[in-house]
Amino acid sequence: MSQSTEQKFMNLLKEQASYEEAIGLMAWDMRTKAPKKAIDPRSEVIGVLSQKVHEIQTSEKMKEYLAALTGTSTAPMVIKAVEEARETYERTVKIPKEEYREYVTLQSKAESMWAEAKENNDFKGFQPYLEELVSYNRRFADYWGYDNHKYDALLHNYEPGVTVKVLDEVFPKVRKALTGLLEQIKGAPEQPDPSLLGGHFPKESQEAFSYEILKRMGYDFDAGRLDETVHPFAIGLNSNDVRVTTKYDEKDFRTAVFGTIHEGGHALYEQNIDPSLAFTPLATGTSMGIHESQSLFWENFVARSKPFWQNHYDLFKSHAPERFSSINLEDFYKAVNEVKPSLIRIEADELTYSLHIMIRYELEKALIGGEIEVKDLPGLWNEKMRDYLGIIPQNDSAGVLQDIHWSGGDFGYFPSYALGYMYAAQLHHTLKQEIVFNDVIRKGDFKQIQQWLTDRIHKFGKMKKPLEIIHDVTGEDLNPNYLVTYLTDKYQEIYKF
Amino acid sequence: MSQSTEQKFMNLLKEQASYEEAIGLMAWDMRTKAPKKAIDPRSEVIGVLSQKVHEIQTSEKMKEYLAALTGTSTAPMVIKAVEEARETYERTVKIPKEEYREYVTLQSKAESMWAEAKENNDFKGFQPYLEELVSYNRRFADYWGYDNHKYDALLHNYEPGVTVKVLDEVFPKVRKALTGLLEQIKGAPEQPDPSLLGGHFPKESQEAFSYEILKRMGYDFDAGRLDETVHPFAIGLNSNDVRVTTKYDEKDFRTAVFGTIHEGGHALYEQNIDPSLAFTPLATGTSMGIHESQSLFWENFVARSKPFWQNHYDLFKSHAPERFSSINLEDFYKAVNEVKPSLIRIEADELTYSLHIMIRYELEKALIGGEIEVKDLPGLWNEKMRDYLGIIPQNDSAGVLQDIHWSGGDFGYFPSYALGYMYAAQLHHTLKQEIVFNDVIRKGDFKQIQQWLTDRIHKFGKMKKPLEIIHDVTGEDLNPNYLVTYLTDKYQEIYKF
Repeated sequence: MSQSTEQKFMNLLKEQASYEEAIGLMAWDMRTKAPKKAIDPRSEVIGVLSQKVHEIQTSEKMKEYLAALTGTSTAPMVIKAVEEARETYERTVKIPKEEYREYVTLQSKAESMWAEAKENNDFKGFQPYLEELVSYNRRFADYWGYDNHKYDALLHNYEPGVTVKVLDEVFPKVRKALTGLLEQIKGAPEQPDPSLLGGHFPKESQEAFSYEILKRMGYDFDAGRLDETVHPFAIGLNSNDVRVTTKYDEKDFRTAVFGTIHEGGHALYEQNIDPSLAFTPLATGTSMGIHESQSLFWENFVARSKPFWQNHYDLFKSHAPERFSSINLEDFYKAVNEVKPSLIRIEADELTYSLHIMIRYELEKALIGGEIEVKDLPGLWNEKMRDYLGIIPQNDSAGVLQDIHWSGGDFGYFPSYALGYMYAAQLHHTLKQEIVFNDVIRKGDFKQIQQWLTDRIHKFGKMKKPLEIIHDVTGEDLNPNYLVTYLTDKYQEIYKF
Repeated sequence: MSQSTEQKFMNLLKEQASYEEAIGLMAWDMRTKAPKKAIDPRSEVIGVLSQKVHEIQTSEKMKEYLAALTGTSTAPMVIKAVEEARETYERTVKIPKEEYREYVTLQSKAESMWAEAKENNDFKGFQPYLEELVSYNRRFADYWGYDNHKYDALLHNYEPGVTVKVLDEVFPKVRKALTGLLEQIKGAPEQPDPSLLGGHFPKESQEAFSYEILKRMGYDFDAGRLDETVHPFAIGLNSNDVRVTTKYDEKDFRTAVFGTIHEGGHALYEQNIDPSLAFTPLATGTSMGIHESQSLFWENFVARSKPFWQNHYDLFKSHAPERFSSINLEDFYKAVNEVKPSLIRIEADELTYSLHIMIRYELEKALIGGEIEVKDLPGLWNEKMRDYLGIIPQNDSAGVLQDIHWSGGDFGYFPSYALGYMYAAQLHHTLKQEIVFNDVIRKGDFKQIQQWLTDRIHKFGKMKKPLEIIHDVTGEDLNPNYLVTYLTDKYQEIYKF
């Protein structure tokens, strides 16, 4: 019996998904379990399998199936899978093979040069690599095409539908509100005391609490696991195997506790994708921004809320060192919500985090648009840090060199972090219309929340585009006001300004 | 610049090796880390990648390269790689595709039916699957061809060069000696007291001692790791990533201690293969039998020897529960070397182990040769157990159903265990001519031993055939007398008969 074209197409997608799953496991292993000497040979193996994925995505077979299937199927899943595969096909074949190969080599070289430059506070050493990466990305943007701004072509890789036009409308509004709030917080009568949270906190106790919270969130340990790593991440190999990693800082429990919950939010998304999408490119989160909305929803809107600690502070104290027994809930809650401008993005608090993102957005947009050059970055970085956060890095390692993204050529990625935050606030607003959110959190009835997120977001995987999800769930387009209102209310209550 | 055929051939082998490495990591993960629900989808991914390996091995490209390269290269590594790939090609294409596909499906079905049958002591439930497996293997043997005995064609998969003729010469000799020794041991004046070894032994202490011993053996933890599993194994993903697994039985430390050393022996082999063989089919142990010779060498000839415990008993006691402090070295040494006929192969002692293997060999040889049928197995099994070991299983679960091998269609595999033991004894004999073995062990100078094994065996990977290695290292063909002498001397000393 001969297979239908549709069946052949699905089989080809399954082959691709299989390589991707194997690559995913190797990546997880390299960051958690693999012995030191395995890293280099394993990278070669990943290279071979990635090449295979690339070959499938751009194969003659794929081209033929896509042509044959376009407009013929009526099954929504097949229609979307064809759309997804066609877009990948078209974008990938637009880049000349030789150029792509050179770019991959450059990426891996640039990443190690960046690590060295960061270590030695040597922007000049990294500059030529970054210049090359920028020039490749400018060319890629031209290959891919765009309507208004060259940077839109890159944004599309991470957050399809979101453009410079959108961001230039929402980011300044949010920035203005955030810098205003920051001013009020600085002079506010009430100030949290984060020193309460310091001191030794045994790793095993942090681990036990992290496990407990993940379980309560609805994370399925039969379809995942929790491990230690240096730079925490969550990875969905398939919806039955979604792994969370975390880092235990014995001097600051917040790294592991909020970090695990954050990654747990990503993991819930991947665990709850409809199983019928398995082994297709639709079986993952729809975009970086929507993914981040899920992690930030759990980390901030749930786990940094007062009702969360009203429920969980006793549990926390049962794992925490003795000294926490004398810290009252109110002081604890305020301390974990301290706002303080800082140099490093990944250490930023809930309020200033988006300001860090906007700085990166403005710089990379101008860079790709050709308005500034790589050599201008350190000076502009420091200027913007002073303007938005009121502090200036002492050196480039704590400034323009701090993030890995650009060294991998990932321009257009940063905005998704701030978008995720705005999405989360907007979803939070909608959810609050449907349930008494604070009561549910206070009761620890996370099942209700997890189910809501699954029904409205998770299960669809890539069947819906990011802005389509936001519109379907909240009834409106991206609206940054919800984030501003949420932060204003929250910090007014804490800082009493 | 166009690539030479040799370069293209090596690239194809690298592609194959990359899939195999990914499969290896997935297999390790499934047996150590993967969450429960990941097992089924991961098996599908392994299936896709295995299919890919099969396609490469039998591809038109491979056929073309092999034809072009045969007799043209002068580089020994290329010559051997061509030989190896050609043999795989020829053996694989001899099996009709459709038949192979059906066989793979049967294997996976039969394995789960076996597990059920073993659980329920229901040989009849497993019988039809085993009959099918046997009939496939009889046909495969015909496709592959053989000179004297159909079973030779299967033996070749695990121990090329070893035939029924060889085994029928050595096994009866060894069996006669072993059953004779067993009689003498039964009536010997001195009897070890294994009850000394019982009682609770905390997992963490076993783990600490296991790590310590692996390190002393020369196992490189920068190129491997030790994890827990249900059925321990070692796996070489590449020579820079060779992982050992073990099982901690808190009621019997011997499982973990001798098991870890056994798997460590396998791991040393894979870690010390010449790096120039990487990403070719030559970068692994040359056969199951030689592999087993390495694990048994370390487990028995080193770690069950008196000089080993003369050196390590203090270290052991530093990790062991308090009660061991009152057990003297001599009694401890005798207890870990107790000989006692038992029903289960994997629990057998050093002496009776080979008898278990011979029973399986005789049965599967007769089965493949068509002299007996599957339905005869339970009766024959029990008969042979009585004849060789003097005990009869109460049921088939503890008898003919105990091992997984046949359910996977692995006929011809069992002899390698006993061959490995004979090889190890022969290597041990040679090594003793070159160094004062007992002194070296007593001093714990394992580096010398590890280096000797690397220089003579490990580094070659598959560059040499098993019997070639034995001849090159020991100056003679397989000679079972060394095993007999070794066991006779050892047990005479212990049991004083």
